[in-house]
Amino acid sequence: MSFLLFLAMAGYLLGSRINQSAIVGEILIGVAVGPSLLGLITYTDFVQGIGQIGAVVMLFVVGMEIRVGDIAKIRYGLIALAGVVFPWAGGYLLASWFGFGFGGAVFVGTALTATSIAITANALREMGKLQTDAAKAIIGAAVIDDVLGLLALSMSADLVSGVFSYAGTFVIIAKAVAFLAFGYLAGHYGVTRLIRRMDRSGIVKRYPEFTFIFAMMFAFLYAMTAELVGLSAIVGAFIAGVSLEGIRLSNSKSFAEGAEYLYIIFGAIFFVSLGILVDVRGLTEAALWFLLALTCVAIVTKFAGCGLAARLQGMSGRDSLIVGIGMSPRGEIAMVVALMGLTDRVIGQDIYTAVVVMSLLTTLVTPIFLKRLYRAKG
Amino acid sequence: MSFLLFLAMAGYLLGSRINQSAIVGEILIGVAVGPSLLGLITYTDFVQGIGQIGAVVMLFVVGMEIRVGDIAKIRYGLIALAGVVFPWAGGYLLASWFGFGFGGAVFVGTALTATSIAITANALREMGKLQTDAAKAIIGAAVIDDVLGLLALSMSADLVSGVFSYAGTFVIIAKAVAFLAFGYLAGHYGVTRLIRRMDRSGIVKRYPEFTFIFAMMFAFLYAMTAELVGLSAIVGAFIAGVSLEGIRLSNSKSFAEGAEYLYIIFGAIFFVSLGILVDVRGLTEAALWFLLALTCVAIVTKFAGCGLAARLQGMSGRDSLIVGIGMSPRGEIAMVVALMGLTDRVIGQDIYTAVVVMSLLTTLVTPIFLKRLYRAKG
Repeated sequence: MSFLLFLAMAGYLLGSRINQSAIVGEILIGVAVGPSLLGLITYTDFVQGIGQIGAVVMLFVVGMEIRVGDIAKIRYGLIALAGVVFPWAGGYLLASWFGFGFGGAVFVGTALTATSIAITANALREMGKLQTDAAKAIIGAAVIDDVLGLLALSMSADLVSGVFSYAGTFVIIAKAVAFLAFGYLAGHYGVTRLIRRMDRSGIVKRYPEFTFIFAMMFAFLYAMTAELVGLSAIVGAFIAGVSLEGIRLSNSKSFAEGAEYLYIIFGAIFFVSLGILVDVRGLTEAALWFLLALTCVAIVTKFAGCGLAARLQGMSGRDSLIVGIGMSPRGEIAMVVALMGLTDRVIGQDIYTAVVVMSLLTTLVTPIFLKRLYRAKG
Repeated sequence: MSFLLFLAMAGYLLGSRINQSAIVGEILIGVAVGPSLLGLITYTDFVQGIGQIGAVVMLFVVGMEIRVGDIAKIRYGLIALAGVVFPWAGGYLLASWFGFGFGGAVFVGTALTATSIAITANALREMGKLQTDAAKAIIGAAVIDDVLGLLALSMSADLVSGVFSYAGTFVIIAKAVAFLAFGYLAGHYGVTRLIRRMDRSGIVKRYPEFTFIFAMMFAFLYAMTAELVGLSAIVGAFIAGVSLEGIRLSNSKSFAEGAEYLYIIFGAIFFVSLGILVDVRGLTEAALWFLLALTCVAIVTKFAGCGLAARLQGMSGRDSLIVGIGMSPRGEIAMVVALMGLTDRVIGQDIYTAVVVMSLLTTLVTPIFLKRLYRAKG
C-alpha cells in the first residue's frame, strides 16, 4: 500500500516533469515497476481491488458534477453509435487481413468498441474542462457506448458460439437500459430524499459521517448492480453520482468532499495499477506489427467515427477533434474483453497482449492530445 | 465492498439504537454476519487488507491530535509496566491452573499483556475526550505497552523454545525504541519541513492533492517499518501522526481533513472486520469455562494494574478508573499473538478461539464502560 502510494506520487512528479497529465505519469510508472520492466510488483488481487475502488470512487465524483440533462441527448447516441460501428469494422477487417479466424477477428473488433470513460473524464477534470460542451458530449456518448459495447460483446460471443438469438440479445440490452433509467430515477427521487431526511435526523447529529458512509455504499451498490446487468462497474458508479448531483446538506459532513479525498488516493492507485496490468514480455515480433497496426486502427476509427458524427451535428471543428480524441481511450474495458477472449480460447496469448498494450497506448495518448488541443484553444 | 459499507452503516444504526458507541454496533454486526452466526462473509485477504488500511489511517488521525510532550512521560511508563506484569502473571497462573503446559501458559499470559490502542483511542475520540488527562495517560501507556508487549512476546517465544538470550532480547527492544525515537524526530524535524517546502513549491500549485498523497504514504511507510521492527503497524502510523501534529499548510488540500474522510470509511470497516474474524463455533464446553475465566482475569488484571498505578501517581479516583478500563481492550493484538501460538503449535484450536473471543469481549466492554464513566462524570 505504501509502495503503491509512493508510485502514485512518483507518477505525479513524472507527469509534471514531462509537462503532462498526472495520469500519464502514473501509468508509465506502473509499466516501469510492473512485470514489463522491473518486475517489482505484480497485479495481485489486492492491487486489483484497490484499483477498482479507485475507479468506482472516481466516476462517482465525476458523476456528481454532471447534470443528467446535459448528457442524455439523442445526438450523443449517434456519436456513440459511430464510435462502435467504425472501430468494430476496422478491428474485424484488420484481424482478418492478418489472417485470424472468424472468432478471433470478432473479438478484436469488439475490444475496439470500448470507450473508457475513466481516462477522459479524469483528464478533463484535471484541466478544469468538465463543463465544456465537448466534455459533456464525450461523457454522454461514453455512457451510451458502454451499453452499445455490451450489445456488441454479447452478440460477438453468441456469433462465435453460434447460438445467436434476437430475444436473448434484446433481454440483455433491456436490462442494461432499465438499470440506467430506473437507477437514475430511484437515485434522483428516492435516495436524494432519503439522504435529506437523514441529514435532518437525530442519527446524523450523533454521527455526522453517517451520510458519507451511506453515499459511498450507494455508489458501490450501483457499481455492483451495473456489473450484474453486464455494464461496467464504473458506469454504475457514474449514474449513482449523477443522480445525487446538486444535493445540499446542512448537518452532515459533505460526502462530495469526502468522496473527493478517497478519489485522490485510490484514483492515483487505479492509474498505476493499469500500468502494472500490462506485460509486454508476451509480445512476439509478429504480434508487434499487429499491435502497431491495431493501435493505429483503434485511434483512427474512433477518432474518425466520433469526430465525424460530432461535426455532422454542427459542433465546431476543434470540439469535434476533442470529441474524437476523447472517445479513443480503451482503458481497462478492452483489457477485460481481451481477457474474456483469452479464457474462452478464441484468441491466443500474443493477441491478448497486443490488445492490452493497444489499450494502454490509446489511454496514454488521449490526455496528451487533449491537453494540446485545449491549450491551443484557450 | 458495498456489503462491508452496508454492514458498517448497520453497525452505526445498531450502536445508536442500543445507545452505545458505533464501535460496539460495528463489531456486533461483524460477529453476526461472520462465520459465527450467519456465515455471510468470511475473513478473506481483501477484508483483512481493507481493515488494516482502516486501522493505520485511524491511528494516523488520532496521532495528529496528540502532542508528543503529552504522552511521553515516565509515569505513563509505570502504568504500562503494571499493565503488562499483572495480566501476564494472571494469564499464566490461570492457564496453569486449567492444566496447560508451560508453553501454552506462557502464550496465554503474553496474549493478555497486549493493549489495543485503536479501540480506546477511537472511543475517546468519538466522545470528544481525547484531550483529557486520562486519555493522554491511556494513549501514552498504550504506546509503551506495545514495546513492552513486544519484549514479552519475544521473551516468551524464547522461553518456550529454550533459546533465551539477553543479548537477542536487548537487540529487539533497542530496535523498537530506536524506531520510535528516530521515527518521531525524523518526522517532526525532517518530514514536516519537507511538507512545508512542498506546500510552497510549484508542484502543489498544479496538484493540490500532492501533499495529501505524500502524508498518507508517510503514514503507511511508518506502519510498515513498525511491523519490520516487531511493533504493531498501528503504532507506527500513530508515531507518523504525532510527528506531524500542528502542521499548517496554505496551498495544499488539508491532509488532516483528507485522512479523516478515509478514516470514516475504512475505520468503520476495520471494526466490522474484527467481528468477522471471530468464529465462536470452535468453542468446546471446556474451552467455554476457560474463556469466561480468562476474560475476567484479562479485565481485572489490566484494570487493577493500570488503575492502581494511575492512582498511586496521584490521579483522581475516577480518572484512575478510566485509565484502568481504557487499557483493557486487547483488540486485534491478542488475536495476532494467539495466531502465532497456534501456528507454532504451542496452543490448540480451542485455546486459540478462547483467546480471540476474550479479546473481542474486552474490546466490546471498553467503550460501554468508558461511556458510562464519562457520563457519570460530566
